[in-house]
Amino acid sequence: MNTPTYTAQQLAEQFGLQVHGDGSTAIRGVATLAHAGPGQLTFLANPRYRTQLADSQAGIVVLRADDAEAAPATALIAKDPYTTFAKIAALFDIAPTRPPGIHPSAVIDPDARIAASAHIGPFVTIGARSVVGENCIIGPGSIIGEDCTLDTGCELIARVTLVTRVRIGKRVRIHPGAVLGADGFGLAMDAGSWIKVPQLGGVRIGDDCEIGANTCVDRGALEDTVLDNDVRLDNLVQIAHNVQIGAHSAIAGCTGIAGSAKIGRYCLLGGAVGVVGHLEICDKVVITGKSVVRNSITEPGEYSSGTPLTDNRTWRKNAARFKQLDALARRILSVSKEKE
Amino acid sequence: MNTPTYTAQQLAEQFGLQVHGDGSTAIRGVATLAHAGPGQLTFLANPRYRTQLADSQAGIVVLRADDAEAAPATALIAKDPYTTFAKIAALFDIAPTRPPGIHPSAVIDPDARIAASAHIGPFVTIGARSVVGENCIIGPGSIIGEDCTLDTGCELIARVTLVTRVRIGKRVRIHPGAVLGADGFGLAMDAGSWIKVPQLGGVRIGDDCEIGANTCVDRGALEDTVLDNDVRLDNLVQIAHNVQIGAHSAIAGCTGIAGSAKIGRYCLLGGAVGVVGHLEICDKVVITGKSVVRNSITEPGEYSSGTPLTDNRTWRKNAARFKQLDALARRILSVSKEKE
Amino acid sequence: MNTPTYTAQQLAEQFGLQVHGDGSTAIRGVATLAHAGPGQLTFLANPRYRTQLADSQAGIVVLRADDAEAAPATALIAKDPYTTFAKIAALFDIAPTRPPGIHPSAVIDPDARIAASAHIGPFVTIGARSVVGENCIIGPGSIIGEDCTLDTGCELIARVTLVTRVRIGKRVRIHPGAVLGADGFGLAMDAGSWIKVPQLGGVRIGDDCEIGANTCVDRGALEDTVLDNDVRLDNLVQIAHNVQIGAHSAIAGCTGIAGSAKIGRYCLLGGAVGVVGHLEICDKVVITGKSVVRNSITEPGEYSSGTPLTDNRTWRKNAARFKQLDALARRILSVSKEKE
Repeated sequence: MNTPTYTAQQLAEQFGLQVHGDGSTAIRGVATLAHAGPGQLTFLANPRYRTQLADSQAGIVVLRADDAEAAPATALIAKDPYTTFAKIAALFDIAPTRPPGIHPSAVIDPDARIAASAHIGPFVTIGARSVVGENCIIGPGSIIGEDCTLDTGCELIARVTLVTRVRIGKRVRIHPGAVLGADGFGLAMDAGSWIKVPQLGGVRIGDDCEIGANTCVDRGALEDTVLDNDVRLDNLVQIAHNVQIGAHSAIAGCTGIAGSAKIGRYCLLGGAVGVVGHLEICDKVVITGKSVVRNSITEPGEYSSGTPLTDNRTWRKNAARFKQLDALARRILSVSKEKE
Repeated sequence: MNTPTYTAQQLAEQFGLQVHGDGSTAIRGVATLAHAGPGQLTFLANPRYRTQLADSQAGIVVLRADDAEAAPATALIAKDPYTTFAKIAALFDIAPTRPPGIHPSAVIDPDARIAASAHIGPFVTIGARSVVGENCIIGPGSIIGEDCTLDTGCELIARVTLVTRVRIGKRVRIHPGAVLGADGFGLAMDAGSWIKVPQLGGVRIGDDCEIGANTCVDRGALEDTVLDNDVRLDNLVQIAHNVQIGAHSAIAGCTGIAGSAKIGRYCLLGGAVGVVGHLEICDKVVITGKSVVRNSITEPGEYSSGTPLTDNRTWRKNAARFKQLDALARRILSVSKEKE
Repeated sequence: MNTPTYTAQQLAEQFGLQVHGDGSTAIRGVATLAHAGPGQLTFLANPRYRTQLADSQAGIVVLRADDAEAAPATALIAKDPYTTFAKIAALFDIAPTRPPGIHPSAVIDPDARIAASAHIGPFVTIGARSVVGENCIIGPGSIIGEDCTLDTGCELIARVTLVTRVRIGKRVRIHPGAVLGADGFGLAMDAGSWIKVPQLGGVRIGDDCEIGANTCVDRGALEDTVLDNDVRLDNLVQIAHNVQIGAHSAIAGCTGIAGSAKIGRYCLLGGAVGVVGHLEICDKVVITGKSVVRNSITEPGEYSSGTPLTDNRTWRKNAARFKQLDALARRILSVSKEKE
């Protein structure tokens, strides 16, 4: 592979940026502000890294107009340096080519339909009535069960499982170990033993979604579990049956969403958040990491729960007092009432 | 596949229900109260959906005697409508057939024994001295190591791993990505480095258990990790070495149980619960989602920990005060003592 | 397999221990203090099991000098009985042999290099420019993408995925379902939609590390995600992009470490801990289970957060008061000030 080279001027034209300094400066890669060398491009977005700017050895720095004067090298001025950097970095993200065709080891049901431009890797199985669209890449070891559909340009990186009735939009990217369309956790007690509540629904994933490694999205009990367009899930996330997630929401690793919860558009859930079932979160809600949502949220904004970390000895004392909090509160209220 | 059709009268006879209205009403499927059409059956169990009853277009509604008069359609009267619905819905849960036989790609150790009625899918490996019982289905990509046993009627949906010394009862269902029998996390410090504590035990799973997608059940250090009959685990659950779980207990997604904890019968653990190692939880304990169990529980009942969600600004103030809770409590107690 | 037999005298010589009692006592296995029989060796390390010592039927007990007189059988005296036991137990941990060679079903890129002594199991795929070192075992269904390296003596138990640019040291053991080198969760907003921030870094794993089942270690955005030597990760752990973990640290199951966090050497993180991104934890820090680290830690020691479990009714009252904590604190401070 030949590494591509770009000048500041070329990048400015391609991405609609302003050059500050020598437009002929050329770069062949990208790196962090601290470690970029003369042949690399970097960026300054977070103000707390501003102190590193003067010492940066980078050939080109993408930054805001305010920071241009302080740049020790050629600068490209962008309104949103991080987003611009992401676009430039993509020029250097050369994915291995996966040529069209079906690996001879793959086991494809005669009732499945595979587009001619799709790549089907080794040890893949595809079940009856499933459809793989144009330019899809189905990585090694992936399993697609019955009645699944992938629209054009999807990529199952490797070892992804779509169990049954999973319908996926365009350009969806799913990372290794993810399981979509497994049975929702539906149980009913019958004479002292559990019986299974059949999970007859499916999973619907919109366009441009991304699903992290070892993440699970269960299929619905009666209706579908739904991720709208451009939903982004990190690794080890659990999406239970009949959850609905609005467009452009992003959910960080280890978060679990219980059954039939409905999450709005443009929501951001931090890592290891828990959302109780059958509640609703409106659009543009941010939940900080490890928080628990036990009630519906109707106002956009940032929400949190939990207690701060302290040394274990202090924590033990404070945690013990938490058990008395209601009694302590009553005592305060009674004392301060008497004072009135 | 032809969709089966059932009349209210047929269902009443099959499941011991009472018909209220026209017994000849026929249905060909099931749906939610809000979305069922005339050819579908639905149910009313949770009182908060009672307001949807009058407008339901369902052909048949399964409900309690008290609600029968309000039903706009034919009703089937059940003591437990949800459980009855689960049984009726199962009539429409038509699993794809997996014929007996071993897929030619499967790699089976000559010392393994596979029942003639078992289905072994593509890309399966089965190790020495392992036994697969009658009517088992071993889905694609599953890996069964050495010295594992599956009794009759088990199903490994796809891509399940049984590492070694895993013994599984009858009719157990394991979802994709689950890993049973991996090494427990046993470490000992030796001269500044970790050494591995050998994990010589196995895993024993009772009859009628269900194990969710990407869930892990480690094998024991010296004795076995044990799930008794009818234990149900959701997705992404971690069961550490030497845990014991009593019959009919159910554990929701993202929960972790640390080593050697012992959980009773008929326990319900919500999502993302944490249970510390080497403690005991008695029968019929309910732990609400995201709670942490740090001590043994000896009384049945519902238990919780954690703090409520608030807007981030309010949370910051309250969380900061948590660090002072013991000091604040001492001050309250001293002030209110002086008042006495 | 013939089970090996060892006498107390042989074990004393091999591991530098002192015999107390009959040195010719022989054992053929190991077991717990409560269940060991005359032909088995056990150990006493945790003082709370001391009461079981007198009744133990074990042939040999490994214990501290202080406990030797109370031993009902032959004793082996060790400074650290648990570590010594781990070493002795390893004598009985006979792994199945995996002979050198490549299974005929494996799909190996012509540009990959596989050492002659390596074992490559069924349904393995290995991508271009990847290298598998001497004596490595690549278990069934494992997927090694492009540009990965495994140094000598590594074992991928089964169904492990190394996505791309994953470099692994010597004697590293990775359990089933683990995914290393998947894309970090890097997103930037662009005109109301997410764009992907390319993840151009890799993953570097030191010597003697262990990675649990279904654990994820994402590759870095620009630089690598790094685990130093002898880091031990349990199951279902999430290590985000550009995290750095110091040598000899151990992390229990269900813990998540957010992007660019830096964890020191000899740290112990309990189960289901959360660590916020871009912070630093110094050496020798212990975080108890389910705690959240939201700020850097600069002093060694044990840290905790969270609230204690109580019955649900009590919890509801106390949790409600947590919402008023700042207001209550102000009231206390005002009342107790007036008193002065």
